[in-house]
Amino acid sequence: MTAWHSLNQLHLECFSNSLEGVPTDVCVYCCLAVKPSLYPSISAFKSDSTETSPDREIDEMATKKAVLFNLWGVVVSPSPAEVFLKCEETLKLPSGFLKKVVIDKHSAMERAERGKLTLSQMIPELDAECVSAASDQKVSLPAGFSVKSLLEELRDSTTVNKHILQTVAMLRRQGLLTGVLANQWVDDSGSGDSSGRLLSLLGGHFDVVLQSCRTGLRVPETDLFTSALTQLGVPPKQALWLGDDEEGVGAAEAVGMTAVLVKDLPEALKQVETFTGVQVVTGESYPASCNPEEVSHGYITIKPSVKLHYVEMGTGPPVMLCHGFPESWYSWRYQIPALADAGFRVLSLDMKGYGESTAPPDIEEYSQEQICQDLVTFMDKMGIPQVTLVGHDWGGAVVWNMARCHPERVRAVASLNTPLFPVDPSKDPMNFLKTVPIFDYQLYFQDPGVAETEMEKDLARTFKIFFHGSGDKDNVPEINTAGVCARGGLFVGLPDEIPRSSILSETALQFYITQFKDKGFRGPLNWYRNVVSNWKWLCSRPRAKLLMPALMVTAGKDPVLLPVFSKGMENMVRPHTHTHTHTHIFIHTCIHVDSTCDCDISVCQIPNLTRGHIEECGHWTQMERSVPVCVCVSVCVCVCVSLHRPMEGRLTV
Amino acid sequence: MTAWHSLNQLHLECFSNSLEGVPTDVCVYCCLAVKPSLYPSISAFKSDSTETSPDREIDEMATKKAVLFNLWGVVVSPSPAEVFLKCEETLKLPSGFLKKVVIDKHSAMERAERGKLTLSQMIPELDAECVSAASDQKVSLPAGFSVKSLLEELRDSTTVNKHILQTVAMLRRQGLLTGVLANQWVDDSGSGDSSGRLLSLLGGHFDVVLQSCRTGLRVPETDLFTSALTQLGVPPKQALWLGDDEEGVGAAEAVGMTAVLVKDLPEALKQVETFTGVQVVTGESYPASCNPEEVSHGYITIKPSVKLHYVEMGTGPPVMLCHGFPESWYSWRYQIPALADAGFRVLSLDMKGYGESTAPPDIEEYSQEQICQDLVTFMDKMGIPQVTLVGHDWGGAVVWNMARCHPERVRAVASLNTPLFPVDPSKDPMNFLKTVPIFDYQLYFQDPGVAETEMEKDLARTFKIFFHGSGDKDNVPEINTAGVCARGGLFVGLPDEIPRSSILSETALQFYITQFKDKGFRGPLNWYRNVVSNWKWLCSRPRAKLLMPALMVTAGKDPVLLPVFSKGMENMVRPHTHTHTHTHIFIHTCIHVDSTCDCDISVCQIPNLTRGHIEECGHWTQMERSVPVCVCVSVCVCVCVSLHRPMEGRLTV
Repeated sequence: MTAWHSLNQLHLECFSNSLEGVPTDVCVYCCLAVKPSLYPSISAFKSDSTETSPDREIDEMATKKAVLFNLWGVVVSPSPAEVFLKCEETLKLPSGFLKKVVIDKHSAMERAERGKLTLSQMIPELDAECVSAASDQKVSLPAGFSVKSLLEELRDSTTVNKHILQTVAMLRRQGLLTGVLANQWVDDSGSGDSSGRLLSLLGGHFDVVLQSCRTGLRVPETDLFTSALTQLGVPPKQALWLGDDEEGVGAAEAVGMTAVLVKDLPEALKQVETFTGVQVVTGESYPASCNPEEVSHGYITIKPSVKLHYVEMGTGPPVMLCHGFPESWYSWRYQIPALADAGFRVLSLDMKGYGESTAPPDIEEYSQEQICQDLVTFMDKMGIPQVTLVGHDWGGAVVWNMARCHPERVRAVASLNTPLFPVDPSKDPMNFLKTVPIFDYQLYFQDPGVAETEMEKDLARTFKIFFHGSGDKDNVPEINTAGVCARGGLFVGLPDEIPRSSILSETALQFYITQFKDKGFRGPLNWYRNVVSNWKWLCSRPRAKLLMPALMVTAGKDPVLLPVFSKGMENMVRPHTHTHTHTHIFIHTCIHVDSTCDCDISVCQIPNLTRGHIEECGHWTQMERSVPVCVCVSVCVCVCVSLHRPMEGRLTV
Repeated sequence: MTAWHSLNQLHLECFSNSLEGVPTDVCVYCCLAVKPSLYPSISAFKSDSTETSPDREIDEMATKKAVLFNLWGVVVSPSPAEVFLKCEETLKLPSGFLKKVVIDKHSAMERAERGKLTLSQMIPELDAECVSAASDQKVSLPAGFSVKSLLEELRDSTTVNKHILQTVAMLRRQGLLTGVLANQWVDDSGSGDSSGRLLSLLGGHFDVVLQSCRTGLRVPETDLFTSALTQLGVPPKQALWLGDDEEGVGAAEAVGMTAVLVKDLPEALKQVETFTGVQVVTGESYPASCNPEEVSHGYITIKPSVKLHYVEMGTGPPVMLCHGFPESWYSWRYQIPALADAGFRVLSLDMKGYGESTAPPDIEEYSQEQICQDLVTFMDKMGIPQVTLVGHDWGGAVVWNMARCHPERVRAVASLNTPLFPVDPSKDPMNFLKTVPIFDYQLYFQDPGVAETEMEKDLARTFKIFFHGSGDKDNVPEINTAGVCARGGLFVGLPDEIPRSSILSETALQFYITQFKDKGFRGPLNWYRNVVSNWKWLCSRPRAKLLMPALMVTAGKDPVLLPVFSKGMENMVRPHTHTHTHTHIFIHTCIHVDSTCDCDISVCQIPNLTRGHIEECGHWTQMERSVPVCVCVSVCVCVCVSLHRPMEGRLTV
């Protein structure tokens, strides 16, 4: 089984296997056994708070506009040559015997790579060629020798290089184009989906993927390089080649590209940095993001006057992402591809009132009862019986309320920042709001039209004020959610010119602006205007323990949804034990958090509540800690949990 | 495990279990072990060719506009009362003991049904009530007695009544509204998805589902009936109630409805027929269809100038449906809900040039190479490594070409009507077309603009001519695809007024018209205008055996894609053995086709090719044999196959 092959297979096995006996090398997303080098491992992401600005636009002076990678030895490794060399040793064949058969200009492998043969046709021909070569060279082939097992060895040892995928994400973030040139045959073996998974992964991460078996051209033929550059619309002088052999480097240079011979990967990546001007090694890493124009957009009519919009990626168990105020499906842009790559089907919603979903004017359309009913209708119409729900901010309130009131439809639930607030039938909820000074903004939001006017006045300023990171310097002013009514507005007293936070790229800012340009803030603010009806509804519902797997992630620097608010949750749900921060934590040998990480994940002794805490993180968790140290781990814990029976037993610390 | 509970679970188990040892009661869709009464079984559908017109519009004189069903004892059975009675016998409790505890006005079950308690809260309270009642009545409870196991017994014995779902599909087809009233508790047990699956199934099949635990009202309270009718917008006089007890019947009558006490189901359904004017028993059955306004619509940009549109339903392994000429995603309207109910994720495409997908003007955009590349890009952007492809007509050509040229992305392949035509590099394909008289229409289609003009002139007439059923009477003229060039047009010689075929409802006709109104036939006809480039492309590709699971379904009365054309396929793929028609056929005890069915399914000795044949079926297979005897069986065989290793061994006949 290859590394890329294993993902979905393993997920599916999980439905019938228990977690017991899972080996310690685990997929960082799905938490299942897989080769650890499959994908950018979470522990590889840096967690220091000195993040460099993610919105550094591409330096116009940088001459490099595209980077092409060789598949073998760069994007995936080892290369076939390396595997063959190893096999020659194991099989006690003369060194170079296999390579010589294979690199023959008319060898079956060469013809397969040119698309003249498929894999299933190549195997017997290559077998015959090996026998013939052995006969010519008076070499005796060992008894068990077969090309099929050689190729299985190649397939089983192939892993995708996480650093290259990271690099590609960074380059594309800065507007560079990327491509893969791949000497590959058509895999018609019908045995598993390893080839399909690799092709899908490449297709999702690179701008262009050129396979020799479909173009008829192999690396190091110069026409293949030219073809890729033509497709990308980049002149050779502005393109860089990363290859693992001299021939490829020579070909790239022959067409006018700059070329790097990859021997030591960190060294090669430094050269990428030099050539492109993009800090792929020294900068903060960002996972792959979503381009709104490239992803799949879905629409469902919930009722004649209400349509919901969602972005969808991946196959597997469905995971629904619910954003908060004032956001978008796009707030999950870093989590969507990661979860999709991990073998889940992600549905990231524009919540009612936002983006391409309908924004009816009436306040009662935004009651939690109605919002939850809309989600149930969404699932009914989609034919989805159960879903894992992940929410943030108001989306967190929605997912807890779904778990409370529609538990049949919730496979598991995860909330970022938003705790499960207790419901007290004896306490007037408006009075409660008044007792918490930092909730004063919610009182200010009550009058229809007032906050709308303030927030719609200058959308760029509004989002620059809202999207504040915990690591921002003092020149980025932080919003004060207390005393809002008294000072007559949320933004009163803030300067006209607000610097953009390091957590928000210019591209992202512009996207948020487009999403609010037409519909404004009335719908989004209406979410706050159902305080009493939400309370009445929840009081009317039975209040039982939440028995599905649940995850609560707190953020240490959230100025409104303080971690302390989540303190009572265990009493409502189940008691839990805290574990130490800054340590290796294994959940059933299942999740590995690096020791340098400030993320604290503890699991209840009683299995259903898992906790995560990200100390160096403000309110906008998915954006600020997009480097998925914690959010992705956390989300994936929940998703993992959602695939299993609740975890039992204690953490191994 | 309940019947509705089992579907996805079983699918998932299949990934790790072999087919061996699967019991003989099988899910008719997924072919896996499941209680046979779960869902309208395929063997229950009639296969006679004397189909009544499916487009009989609702009789305006019929007074009944809505039918409400009681959940327990009607939509699902047995009722809790029956199960408790049985348990009393088994546990040697006095008859009526459990019922008396449970129906107490303040019993925990009554409070749970009103939504005052959840299931997990109800169980210990009901346990205590049983103990207390036993003490009061001097009854000794048996050692192992627990409410939890009683409820498990209830859950495990519950099956959805297929005849009711059939009836609901027929009623909705004729424009009637349907609803379920359900005395149910909130299931927060977190154990499996049985409740979620039932709710999702009900939500997908009925117009309104009212649960007592969310409304606070139980059957037989009259307010619950009134509430349902208000939601449907139907006055009581126009509504019918089907219940299993006197109390419910009394309540329905009290609010002014007509009520039927269901004792004998066929008898009750006859009464539904009488009251509604819809032939639910005596007419031809139709499975649930799709309402274009109710389903999820997705869009992906393949490249800046090309967008693909699809309709999506269900969760599970992805199955992509590719329609033919001149059709729509909507041509799979009967298969979409059936596959979704069976636990698959259906993606039904508007192929390029059709409906809401883009229709670029250039001929080369419609070459098979380009169409297949578009599908690969679609999968890359959706994050789907592999898919099961099902095609019909031109869609059949696409799925075979995907299987030939992109086998990595094809989990399994199924074609209706369209065989895998051999590719002969020595034969000019235009000359080949000229040798087959019934392919003359394809020569007529070559000149851009000509056929467009003829077909766009009167869209209603065009579709009434095209969509002809094999069982149509002589007054519905059949198209002659030979001699078209000579007579100067495909429709030349046909009358102006064409009766609508029995396979096409007025609603469906109007939908097709809207789909072609803007874009016309240029894109669709361009599919035919790449004869030489398609041939050249296929000649350039390696021609190997197709090793993924494959299914070929032929239609006995297709005037163009004759079953005989598929005869050579075994030589190209693998030899197969034919089995007899009109007999019980079991594939690994997995699929049961009724002996009265004219469907012939044979499986190759070598496992990858499965065949289906539908004798009484013309070209429009999905519509004409929507009664899914064969199409659904066939599709599901393929899907089933796609979940397993290829089936081995012979049929048990």
